[in-house]
Amino acid sequence: MRKMLPGIGVFGTSPSIRTFVAILNSCGFRVVALWGRVKAEAEQLAVELNIPVSTDNVDEILLNKDVDVIVISCPPHMQSPIAVKALGIGKHVLCGTPAGPTQVESLKMVHAAGYYPKLAARMIYGLRFLPTINTMKQLIEEGFLGELKICEIRVHFWNYPKEKFDWTCDEIMGGGVLNSIGSNLIDIVTYLTSQKAISVHGMLKTYTKQTEKINGIREITSDDFCSFQLELDYGACATVTINSHMPGQFYQEITVVGTKARLTAKGADLYGQKNDSRKEELLHFDPINFKEEERYGVSEKTRSVIPTPYLKGIIRMMENVKEAFDKEEERQSYCQEMLENAATFEDSLYVQTVIDAIKASNHTKEWEKVEVKNDEPAPSPILPHGASKT
Amino acid sequence: MRKMLPGIGVFGTSPSIRTFVAILNSCGFRVVALWGRVKAEAEQLAVELNIPVSTDNVDEILLNKDVDVIVISCPPHMQSPIAVKALGIGKHVLCGTPAGPTQVESLKMVHAAGYYPKLAARMIYGLRFLPTINTMKQLIEEGFLGELKICEIRVHFWNYPKEKFDWTCDEIMGGGVLNSIGSNLIDIVTYLTSQKAISVHGMLKTYTKQTEKINGIREITSDDFCSFQLELDYGACATVTINSHMPGQFYQEITVVGTKARLTAKGADLYGQKNDSRKEELLHFDPINFKEEERYGVSEKTRSVIPTPYLKGIIRMMENVKEAFDKEEERQSYCQEMLENAATFEDSLYVQTVIDAIKASNHTKEWEKVEVKNDEPAPSPILPHGASKT
Repeated sequence: MRKMLPGIGVFGTSPSIRTFVAILNSCGFRVVALWGRVKAEAEQLAVELNIPVSTDNVDEILLNKDVDVIVISCPPHMQSPIAVKALGIGKHVLCGTPAGPTQVESLKMVHAAGYYPKLAARMIYGLRFLPTINTMKQLIEEGFLGELKICEIRVHFWNYPKEKFDWTCDEIMGGGVLNSIGSNLIDIVTYLTSQKAISVHGMLKTYTKQTEKINGIREITSDDFCSFQLELDYGACATVTINSHMPGQFYQEITVVGTKARLTAKGADLYGQKNDSRKEELLHFDPINFKEEERYGVSEKTRSVIPTPYLKGIIRMMENVKEAFDKEEERQSYCQEMLENAATFEDSLYVQTVIDAIKASNHTKEWEKVEVKNDEPAPSPILPHGASKT
Repeated sequence: MRKMLPGIGVFGTSPSIRTFVAILNSCGFRVVALWGRVKAEAEQLAVELNIPVSTDNVDEILLNKDVDVIVISCPPHMQSPIAVKALGIGKHVLCGTPAGPTQVESLKMVHAAGYYPKLAARMIYGLRFLPTINTMKQLIEEGFLGELKICEIRVHFWNYPKEKFDWTCDEIMGGGVLNSIGSNLIDIVTYLTSQKAISVHGMLKTYTKQTEKINGIREITSDDFCSFQLELDYGACATVTINSHMPGQFYQEITVVGTKARLTAKGADLYGQKNDSRKEELLHFDPINFKEEERYGVSEKTRSVIPTPYLKGIIRMMENVKEAFDKEEERQSYCQEMLENAATFEDSLYVQTVIDAIKASNHTKEWEKVEVKNDEPAPSPILPHGASKT
């Protein structure tokens, strides 16, 4: 007899939660409880998504004995406390992006994950499970590109005018394209090249400060355009442009150039060209599967929330999570090797540190060093760490 | 009877000189003299290109009574002295890019052009005459884009390994992709948007420091990759990437995004999309004309010297120059309005100032202000300007 899959509790009422729940159901998980900050909203969404329990009380989900894994997709500042608490209670955690809003919160997650190494604590960076990205990674590791030189990424999409003021409009709360899209790209640069940023530069812009629905004294402060550059630790560099003012479909291009050739992931397809070859070759073809997208309730509008290459990756990731749990006999146990590709909270701390440095660079107008912290700041300014020294 | 077109003297033995001469001949000009730094080289090229006079003496061309217009395409540090002297002797000057190597030289050209306002003194920025660019400019001026926000440019091409060490290998002499391609792009941003950079940031890289032919103690110092950002004076910004490590054909994309729509010049074609429209539209189609290219001796290799969109523009520019001279009765006179679109030496000074600031930014790792100088530096450190004040 097949083992029963673990029960899932989801945190959040965001548009991506709908898609996450559809994917989880489709993988055979039972989504047993949903948390939302506003009770009525949680209730309504739970009814709609056929989830038996809904609540605005975090503990009610975490202490629910049918919940073995929690999936978080709420405003960044809430994610870290929920993840930390969940791990303490012994629940596996899959955390949506962006984690943030700053590296302090990410560091707390790293420490919590460190205390409970048997619990799954992973980030939902969809691109890491996109077949094209993994083919690219494999080719790079096999030496297809030679020595790596340049990573050039650009993302074009259309940000529908925001209808209500929420955390996505606010820079400090973790909104903006650098956080939402950029976090995934910073992660993927390291995933692909095995190089980390040592210093960064960034230019962030908020061109749409008000919309039809958001006006008066409130203003959007989160970035809707950004261009940033990374110096990587083994001599390569990266330049990334995220432009949310481009009418039309979501378009993402990730190019890595080496001394021998170049590889380009356009959406979910992979192209390559050797230096001595006259034409680029299609190395991996993975077109949009409209039926699949429909199954997960993806419309053109939600595609700007979870764009196709990300969605494809997230579906694969959840399938991997399912298999990882399937492999072990105990309902709460999973096979760690199956999730090796998935980003850890440490990966997310690195990403968040880079994001913080890019934001700092945007203010100082200088390159900023990337320094991953290991110590949480002292909880009280009156009794700082090391105060006993003198 | 039709007036006789002015005689042309060309300066330089670079690969682009071959193309310039072919274009000039094709327009009906008589190329009567060629100058080269090395007498034998000049002689050989003159024979090959059917030019009656060749010399390594600058004055011999400038004092030649059959020469009315000079076309310069030599190492940047030689261009300014030749242009300044030519204007002083009463010759029209068309100067190739990059002008440089720094703004000091460009400033001297501006002053010389200012003394002789009746002489044509123009830069050969080909893109200004590319029909797609002019359609784009017209649409922008008519308000197609609304308020301008972002200018995103990228250029991908393959730089054939350099075979001998010359100025193009040397950063200080004015080599590198920022100078050669970037100068044209900095100019075109202002041409299209009517906005100028007030501060800039740049990251320049030299990934190919040695080639099969250039090795030992000599090293290439000019940039083969660059990414730079401009803050423009009316609130828009620009981000530009020039990557010469991409095997394959020359590819250039210039996108300008406004509040209402976006326009993208891909090579010599123009595409546009309104914010409320579902698809991009082809607004101007201008495919490679292989026959035309063949006529001007363009092979795939020379296409990386004068890429298609630039070549198309330069051909149009020379046709305009021809018409400008055709319109006036005197052989040496030309119709100034016909060359209104062509970049002046002042435009080139601005471009050079931006380039200098980008290079400075690459060293300081900070944003740099763009400050166009009006005064030449004092010629002697012992007797500086204003020394008499004390």
